[in-house]
Amino acid sequence: MKPMHLMSYVRGGWHAADTGLAEIRSAVTGEPIGRIGSDGIDFAATARFAREVGGPALRAMTFHDRARHLKLLAQAVMDRKEELYALSHHSGATRADGWIDIEGGAGTLFAYSSKGRRELPDARILLDGPPEMLSRGGSFVGQHVFTPLQGVALHINAFNFPVWGMLEKLAPTLLAGVPAIVKPASSTAYVTEACVRILLDTGMLPDGALQFVAGSTGDLIDHLGTQDIVSFTGSAATAATIRANPVFADKGVRFVAEQDSLNACMLGPDATPDSPEFALFVKEVVREMTAKAGQKCTAIRRSFVPEALIDDVQAAISARLDRVIVGDPSAEGTTMGALASERQLRDVRAAVADLAREARIVWGDPEATPAPGGAFMSPVLLRCDTPWDAATVHDREAFGPVATLMPYRDLAEGVALCNRGQGSLVMSLFTGDPAVAIAVVAGAAAWHGRVLIVDQACAGESTGHGSPLPALVHGGPGRAGGGEEMGGIRGVHHYMQRTALQGSPAMLAAIGGRWIAGAPVDDAPPHPFRLRFDEVEIGRTIVTAERRVTLEDIEHFARFTGDTFYAHMDEAAAARNPFFPGRVAHGYLILSFAAGLFVDPDEGPVLANTGLDTLRFLKPLSPGATMRVRLTAKSKTRRNDDYGEVRWDVLVTDGDGDAIATYELLTMVAG
Amino acid sequence: MKPMHLMSYVRGGWHAADTGLAEIRSAVTGEPIGRIGSDGIDFAATARFAREVGGPALRAMTFHDRARHLKLLAQAVMDRKEELYALSHHSGATRADGWIDIEGGAGTLFAYSSKGRRELPDARILLDGPPEMLSRGGSFVGQHVFTPLQGVALHINAFNFPVWGMLEKLAPTLLAGVPAIVKPASSTAYVTEACVRILLDTGMLPDGALQFVAGSTGDLIDHLGTQDIVSFTGSAATAATIRANPVFADKGVRFVAEQDSLNACMLGPDATPDSPEFALFVKEVVREMTAKAGQKCTAIRRSFVPEALIDDVQAAISARLDRVIVGDPSAEGTTMGALASERQLRDVRAAVADLAREARIVWGDPEATPAPGGAFMSPVLLRCDTPWDAATVHDREAFGPVATLMPYRDLAEGVALCNRGQGSLVMSLFTGDPAVAIAVVAGAAAWHGRVLIVDQACAGESTGHGSPLPALVHGGPGRAGGGEEMGGIRGVHHYMQRTALQGSPAMLAAIGGRWIAGAPVDDAPPHPFRLRFDEVEIGRTIVTAERRVTLEDIEHFARFTGDTFYAHMDEAAAARNPFFPGRVAHGYLILSFAAGLFVDPDEGPVLANTGLDTLRFLKPLSPGATMRVRLTAKSKTRRNDDYGEVRWDVLVTDGDGDAIATYELLTMVAG
Repeated sequence: MKPMHLMSYVRGGWHAADTGLAEIRSAVTGEPIGRIGSDGIDFAATARFAREVGGPALRAMTFHDRARHLKLLAQAVMDRKEELYALSHHSGATRADGWIDIEGGAGTLFAYSSKGRRELPDARILLDGPPEMLSRGGSFVGQHVFTPLQGVALHINAFNFPVWGMLEKLAPTLLAGVPAIVKPASSTAYVTEACVRILLDTGMLPDGALQFVAGSTGDLIDHLGTQDIVSFTGSAATAATIRANPVFADKGVRFVAEQDSLNACMLGPDATPDSPEFALFVKEVVREMTAKAGQKCTAIRRSFVPEALIDDVQAAISARLDRVIVGDPSAEGTTMGALASERQLRDVRAAVADLAREARIVWGDPEATPAPGGAFMSPVLLRCDTPWDAATVHDREAFGPVATLMPYRDLAEGVALCNRGQGSLVMSLFTGDPAVAIAVVAGAAAWHGRVLIVDQACAGESTGHGSPLPALVHGGPGRAGGGEEMGGIRGVHHYMQRTALQGSPAMLAAIGGRWIAGAPVDDAPPHPFRLRFDEVEIGRTIVTAERRVTLEDIEHFARFTGDTFYAHMDEAAAARNPFFPGRVAHGYLILSFAAGLFVDPDEGPVLANTGLDTLRFLKPLSPGATMRVRLTAKSKTRRNDDYGEVRWDVLVTDGDGDAIATYELLTMVAG
Repeated sequence: MKPMHLMSYVRGGWHAADTGLAEIRSAVTGEPIGRIGSDGIDFAATARFAREVGGPALRAMTFHDRARHLKLLAQAVMDRKEELYALSHHSGATRADGWIDIEGGAGTLFAYSSKGRRELPDARILLDGPPEMLSRGGSFVGQHVFTPLQGVALHINAFNFPVWGMLEKLAPTLLAGVPAIVKPASSTAYVTEACVRILLDTGMLPDGALQFVAGSTGDLIDHLGTQDIVSFTGSAATAATIRANPVFADKGVRFVAEQDSLNACMLGPDATPDSPEFALFVKEVVREMTAKAGQKCTAIRRSFVPEALIDDVQAAISARLDRVIVGDPSAEGTTMGALASERQLRDVRAAVADLAREARIVWGDPEATPAPGGAFMSPVLLRCDTPWDAATVHDREAFGPVATLMPYRDLAEGVALCNRGQGSLVMSLFTGDPAVAIAVVAGAAAWHGRVLIVDQACAGESTGHGSPLPALVHGGPGRAGGGEEMGGIRGVHHYMQRTALQGSPAMLAAIGGRWIAGAPVDDAPPHPFRLRFDEVEIGRTIVTAERRVTLEDIEHFARFTGDTFYAHMDEAAAARNPFFPGRVAHGYLILSFAAGLFVDPDEGPVLANTGLDTLRFLKPLSPGATMRVRLTAKSKTRRNDDYGEVRWDVLVTDGDGDAIATYELLTMVAG
């Protein structure tokens, strides 16, 4: 193939460096396949371009606008995925490895697009939680909001997932409304560059929203400031080097790190050689050792098993490892490809040599050359029978097809050994016993970003120990970097600032686009159900006529619906109840009569009542009392070109003006 | 008075240092009032005591247990508040200043006690968000949880609020289930020590839950690890020094900082000399300059006003400052007390000298001695007419009764000038125009932890620019430290680890104590409404008989309730609606009939239906179709000795087995 000359995309154009180029080699053949470098880029101007051009363009869009764009980006990646698979092969990845990277990356964009439209408002500001009442009289209230950072996100990514690694950060960043500068690891940056071209070709990214640096970021970090954020994936050592830059302490640049960790898996004390969890455990350990040739931050490095089972487990893992076929990732039958580079191979061998001082190798030869040419390595299983005397096995990561098997005596010791990783991205537990799972979560969750519990019931659909998912947080405490990525909308929050707003209900309602009790209402005609979606203004209100609820109504309702609960039908029993003075109206009768009071019956723009939230019955309604309803437009979300959802704040009061019920009503309204 | 010898409380006992003692002086008289020092404390053992004794004891309690303890601590502080007021006087605080510190501190404990019982479960694990469906078949699901950190929280507090500063951190820390070591600033530590004695005297704090260091923390930080957290309040310089300790980078020790910042206030462009917001602005600037003698992290340092109004504003502020009476805080008529120490006085004067290079002093003399003896200083108002040419005014904090007045030309410039603080705890905006507020929030919220918007409507009840509130986050980006304290339960999260759990619905339901779709159900007799609170197990279920809904039912319901909406009454109009095939049953009819199906009518342990959440109508029910209900116990919360709340998952299906409605039903159940 023609050698690639990787280019950067900065300040709206492609940039090719002439000097300072480094060579990139194929992981499969060891031959040079391209050159990379970023000499000549003005990094201060690159950061400014993001802040001054990309940021404002993204912030002008709503969350839903941005979510729709993510979907188009995802579709473009899927449409052109074969271009990426073809390049991915040079990194040593099998088709299955590439699937995780490429289709996993597109899937993350799809997931954020979908979550963005379902869980975020069609607005530029995100409300966080309900209003907080800050005063007795209700004239002074609080509201937390998230607004996009006004800086740039620098994404520093690892070599192992050149596509997913970019997209899993880009999705929440762009959804938040923040521009990104992506800096991939050089050894596999050619796959990332190809993906960046696909994204840019869509034409859906505003200028400055996405810039791409092939090679070193030069002095870029020196130019970061208060509104900027670095999101880093890689080793603890590199994280510490970056973090030493004074911009983090002096300017408060945010830093989110996701670092490799010494992830553990644990076979529960309830397992036997014949139990389904035993077989599932063995299968998962081997899968984690060989998928992506073990080059995953999340891969299992430490396997803990009940001491009575360690020989059985070793035998079973070994038998599975016997069947692994290492070789050219594109060749038929290959089950494990190459490490990403010769350098990785050297690093992993050095780590195994360190581990072998505390543990013995029980399967595989780290120095073997299982296939010719590239950075191929055999899987290596180590065993350490005295894990409390060991330090390296809990701390030294061999970032390849390497794991260490260790025994534990009882559940508490197993948990303590898992925690000796000093903070990990993930641990998995194989058990069929909920009591074991409860104890492990209580003891180990605080040390882990993710805990996977595998039993027979979920094994068929489990996505496995090593797979971060867009809906779940990815990151971990301590050794794992203390970061948190994804987790659905949680990951979007990292690119926004949370601010507590305080003020009058009218002011906060205007800012948040959500009506708050105490904010102005407009109850002028026509009936709000006669208004089309675009005509319904926040605060639009109807106050209904009064209706008296009689004992006859209650008895009639009870007979008709079958709801003859004693609180409605039996005066003495109801009076014995701590909540009621005697017989009271059904809650559902109050709801139904309320609808009868506020509904405008004729055909009109209101299409349907689609739901109801946070209904609370606050005061019982006795026979003979009256009720009336106030219905106020609280917030609106357009669902498509034809209609949108209007959320109404509903207050039902009795003749004394006391609240008897409050709720939020959802309607679909045309227009 | 007898000189105080401050003691530390560590490892279950009081410790008095004999060597290395430093002198503490009265801010009012300048005379020595006590000595402080921590020589001889084994800090490694102190941290271990917290982790090994305090942590397990706190984690054995539920959130509600801990919340109840906070209330007793708050009551003890209120009961003995006069002891604290008496000491507080020596720090230069007026009675009003002491109120903020002492009663504000107790109020924060009360607020957390109340929020803990209302917003957290009576459990040891906190579920974060709904379950995440991770597979098509539903056998593999996710659930985020928070569990308490298994380490210790080191609280390093500032001198200005010796009581509140401790309690606002202690409340969320203890509520989370994490033990604390409190290290107050030495100059006012005698007030904190007295408060610690009050807290310990309650007997409500388990051993190791609260330790107190009077004086230096020695090598304590060196002994912190992955599960530990430092929560710091103070200057940016001190924060940077602490943060340089390698435990933060190497072990992932958490660090939450709340630093002084150059907080701004802004008079909106809509103001006139006669507008109410003008007067409110002037009053607030002076209040912030003089309360606590300006020694608040949140105090206004920079005041921005429309350029046409700057002379009027200066005159109005000056007129108010003329009336300030500086002196002995316990003397009748005093409106501003002393700075906390001679050292503070020197620091503030040095800062004013720096500011005076860019701004001119227009009111007050920083070198004046307005009262004899202690660290008394005059308020100082500066004015800088060229704020874009200035740097010091946006960066140098005079931590005393000092503020700088500056003009802006238009709204965008005003926002940009506020943001030149490079990240602040709070800004306030005085405007009556929602459009101004919307623009300021869009432009400035990302640079601020809190934005107060004052208009005439809220001014009477506003708690003011300088007051952090337990329900709102306190902290800010960049210069302000990047931390976030309080914010209700948000502040509790900092002391916990968020973990994504994955597994089968049965496993995650067992761990979380909340039923999840797909988890086992038990529909054996008796009817679940015959069970007392303690007898209702998660997953307890009733599947009802089927009921046919006729057109007659629909018409009858419409006439009875008055809900004659066209979708129920007019076949042609209903068919034109995009959601319905023709006339359909009312949603409220479905709810009411559902209750008729699942209710057990006789007097029994179920006391009341108190509410309903997240009702969604998923499929319309046409006349002639049938419905049935599955009701499953989802979660339980005990409310008092007599009864508790049971939350039921409700699924209404039609004859095809399709879901037509889902919701959660709340009942109070005796027992």
